[in-house]
Amino acid sequence: MDPVRVGILGLGTVGGGTVSLLRRNAEPLKRRLGRALEVTRVAVKDPSKPRPVDLEGIEVGTDAESICTDPNIDIVIELVGGVDNAEPLVRKALEHGKPVVTANKALLAERGNELFRFAGEQGVDLAFEAAVAGGIPIIKALREGLAGNRIESVHAIANGTANYMLSRMRTEGMEFAGALQEAQDLGYAELDPTFDVDGIDAAHKLALVAAVAFGAPINYEALHIEGIRSITREDILYADELGYRIKLLAITKNGPGGIELRVHPTLVPQDTMLASVEGVFNAVQVVGDAVGPTLYYGPGAGADPTASAVVGDLVDVARTLGAPPEYRVPYLGFRADGMQEPRWAPVEEVETEYYLRMQAQDQPGVLAQVTRILSEEGISIEAIRQKEPRPGDTDVPVVLVTHTTKERAMRKAVAAIDGLDVINGPSQLIRLEEVDAV
Amino acid sequence: MDPVRVGILGLGTVGGGTVSLLRRNAEPLKRRLGRALEVTRVAVKDPSKPRPVDLEGIEVGTDAESICTDPNIDIVIELVGGVDNAEPLVRKALEHGKPVVTANKALLAERGNELFRFAGEQGVDLAFEAAVAGGIPIIKALREGLAGNRIESVHAIANGTANYMLSRMRTEGMEFAGALQEAQDLGYAELDPTFDVDGIDAAHKLALVAAVAFGAPINYEALHIEGIRSITREDILYADELGYRIKLLAITKNGPGGIELRVHPTLVPQDTMLASVEGVFNAVQVVGDAVGPTLYYGPGAGADPTASAVVGDLVDVARTLGAPPEYRVPYLGFRADGMQEPRWAPVEEVETEYYLRMQAQDQPGVLAQVTRILSEEGISIEAIRQKEPRPGDTDVPVVLVTHTTKERAMRKAVAAIDGLDVINGPSQLIRLEEVDAV
Ligand SMILES: NC(=O)c1ccc[n+]([C@@H]2O[C@H](COP(=O)([O-])OP(=O)(O)OC[C@H]3O[C@@H](n4cnc5c(N)ncnc54)[C@H](OP(=O)(O)O)[C@@H]3O)[C@@H](O)[C@H]2O)c1
Ligand SMILES: NC(=O)c1ccc[n+]([C@@H]2O[C@H](COP(=O)([O-])OP(=O)(O)OC[C@H]3O[C@@H](n4cnc5c(N)ncnc54)[C@H](OP(=O)(O)O)[C@@H]3O)[C@@H](O)[C@H]2O)c1
Repeated sequence: MDPVRVGILGLGTVGGGTVSLLRRNAEPLKRRLGRALEVTRVAVKDPSKPRPVDLEGIEVGTDAESICTDPNIDIVIELVGGVDNAEPLVRKALEHGKPVVTANKALLAERGNELFRFAGEQGVDLAFEAAVAGGIPIIKALREGLAGNRIESVHAIANGTANYMLSRMRTEGMEFAGALQEAQDLGYAELDPTFDVDGIDAAHKLALVAAVAFGAPINYEALHIEGIRSITREDILYADELGYRIKLLAITKNGPGGIELRVHPTLVPQDTMLASVEGVFNAVQVVGDAVGPTLYYGPGAGADPTASAVVGDLVDVARTLGAPPEYRVPYLGFRADGMQEPRWAPVEEVETEYYLRMQAQDQPGVLAQVTRILSEEGISIEAIRQKEPRPGDTDVPVVLVTHTTKERAMRKAVAAIDGLDVINGPSQLIRLEEVDAV
Repeated sequence: MDPVRVGILGLGTVGGGTVSLLRRNAEPLKRRLGRALEVTRVAVKDPSKPRPVDLEGIEVGTDAESICTDPNIDIVIELVGGVDNAEPLVRKALEHGKPVVTANKALLAERGNELFRFAGEQGVDLAFEAAVAGGIPIIKALREGLAGNRIESVHAIANGTANYMLSRMRTEGMEFAGALQEAQDLGYAELDPTFDVDGIDAAHKLALVAAVAFGAPINYEALHIEGIRSITREDILYADELGYRIKLLAITKNGPGGIELRVHPTLVPQDTMLASVEGVFNAVQVVGDAVGPTLYYGPGAGADPTASAVVGDLVDVARTLGAPPEYRVPYLGFRADGMQEPRWAPVEEVETEYYLRMQAQDQPGVLAQVTRILSEEGISIEAIRQKEPRPGDTDVPVVLVTHTTKERAMRKAVAAIDGLDVINGPSQLIRLEEVDAV
């Protein structure tokens, strides 16, 4: 049979990795598909850039749009990144009846609903495994493998850079700034590290994961996002003493207030699998009503792992090229007419445990005042520790961990505590999740 | 649209779980599929048995074959178990153009090649996610998610009962017999525990995993299988002191001698994810050339988790009911004409590290004799420890760990060591795998 002709937009980290992988594994891929996957055209911004990829036999140009409209291209892979520049390209390809494979989480988090709707109208595929957790086939697991379940929760370490930094802060005793510098020196963090450290990249991924987990429209707007800038060495140390690690988690959960969507630093028990995920790795813990807790672990980014996900999608898409759409897995696992807008839980209605670090004046009665406020809000305390004052300091750190309580009550209590004369606010509040027994 | 009519053979642990799950999650399943999944008939052996499942509206009978030939059944789920009784039923269903979903690893390990060939001739699906690692969607990950990779190795904790027993031996200091008794009391191990503790169940699963990982025919015959009966408390303790845990691993690997297929107790470094898998859980570590190391973790058995896998398959199969076969994922990920018989590595050609425990007479020069034999076989030693004699014993345990060496050389060395006057053989030899840095 004729080869499947593939056009790739962008030849950076992921695009370059994809071209190399398709070349290297052409033989086993053909054994899977019965047809060759042939990259015939790629588009870049600067064609004069030297590229460490074998481009023999591939037409390299700068006109990405012309690939999307080329009748000799069967499938388009979008790897230019960005939202405003990628969207018209994806749309153009779909409009011309070409399925699209993309790794672009920002695009789908912000414009996914319209793009999936349009792809549905055109009857073509739009695949995005590479957009979430790099090489880990987590979209496939949620969308297909766990299709029998009602998903109860997903807890993900979805940004390798942030996880690397938190690992280094713990193992090397670094502060945030030093860990960031190191991550940048190693090429992990972008020069503008906002997406990684402020939780935005993890939030983009979570928006997609929640849609697939719950059969709901993508709702990036509903997300509560906190990054790791405020996390100190001290917090990591105290968490450790209490038996926890601090991770940047992306969490979606069918909670008492509705579907929760939140990205924030989180204490997780040291003896869980999630806690043991170190460095640039990603991990996704999924709890389903039938399967119970499962976990998926692997490299969350990089040329080869991300190309692995792109090519996995490409094989699926190529196999059903031209098939009636009903034979294909729906984009988000649920059919368009089966998607349901759930109640999205406001963050105030989240129920979880909390770690609270306060700076208290070193005098009697402080703990009594703090615990009185908490008890007035119905918050019960699991552990409380008064630390030694830091050298030269007159006030002492007080650290406590609560039992499960509503965020609204916790915020009210912290505001009251920070208003005490004996507390030098603002106090540090970090959520704590038991993440089941995994 | 009309419901998909499902017939289930067997209403035991998994069959009962599947009926319950299909009922409980009928609504979200319909949102995925656009059609209801309706169990219309089930077959059991003893219809008078009380069943803790709601069977309203389901025709319960004892004639399994008549379900396989019933023109009003669209999909057959085989959950009777066993090889000789299940095979004709599966064949009958396929013959009548009905796709089959099964959890039967014994059947597919032993008769899979012929059954997949027959299913191919009939142009219908034969799905088996539930046969491997319970609720973990590992077949889907290997067959589809990681399709872009050449798989390098798979290391799996694939039998929850054996893993539970090894966990208990370590944490409670039990011997094999006590751990087995406990597992039986808890209903984990069968009354005839052979399949679990002798590695047969793990071997059935490995035979399937290897086929999917390497695009090779299923070759249960080529497997090297050792169970956990010979593992003592002492081994677990010494392994612990050396920084390792003992796990029953199912391993397939593209090694220097060809594709390795082996199930055996294995020392794995304590700080790896595989080592931290305790109790009845399963985990599968997959290394691909592009993705690198990934790991999949979850419950390996039980009514609900296994039903999760059965229903996941059912959704896939129902979606492509009546579709031309080329639109469906090939049974083992590779097309029938793309399967290749590899060189299967004889176990003598496996290269790995080893743990060796000997009983040595407590006299000078013993270590010199042992190390001379190892060095004659070109085996280098990573660590060696001479233990205190056990109370009342005159000989002392000597434990050593080698660097990577060929099994053939190691076996020769152990035979020579056991022939020494100063050694009370047979010595205990357990393989040790570094399982990458995961
Ligand atoms: N990097 C990762 O590990 C990773 C992991 C998961 C997902 N992703 C996602 O994958 C996508 C690509 O990421 P990346 O890291 O590969 O980005 P990158 O290295 O910056 O590469 C972007 C590529 O797109 C080209 N390009 C940009 N605008 C273009 C235009 N208008 N027309 C034609 N070509 C254009 C660039 O050309 P020049 O080379 O000429 O500049 C470059 O080759 C992003 O959506 C990202 O979020 C990345
Ligand atoms: N249990 C697990 O956790 C698990 C996990 C993964 C895979 N599996 C696999 O799933 C399959 C089923 O296991 P299971 O644990 O559910 O077995 P099970 O509890 O022993 O159930 C077997 C069922 O099959 C019925 N049956 C046996 N022979 C029959 C025949 N000739 N005609 C009609 N019905 C017949 C039995 O009827 P009665 O009830 O009347 O006796 C029983 O309902 C096996 O292949 C097993 O390896 C099991």
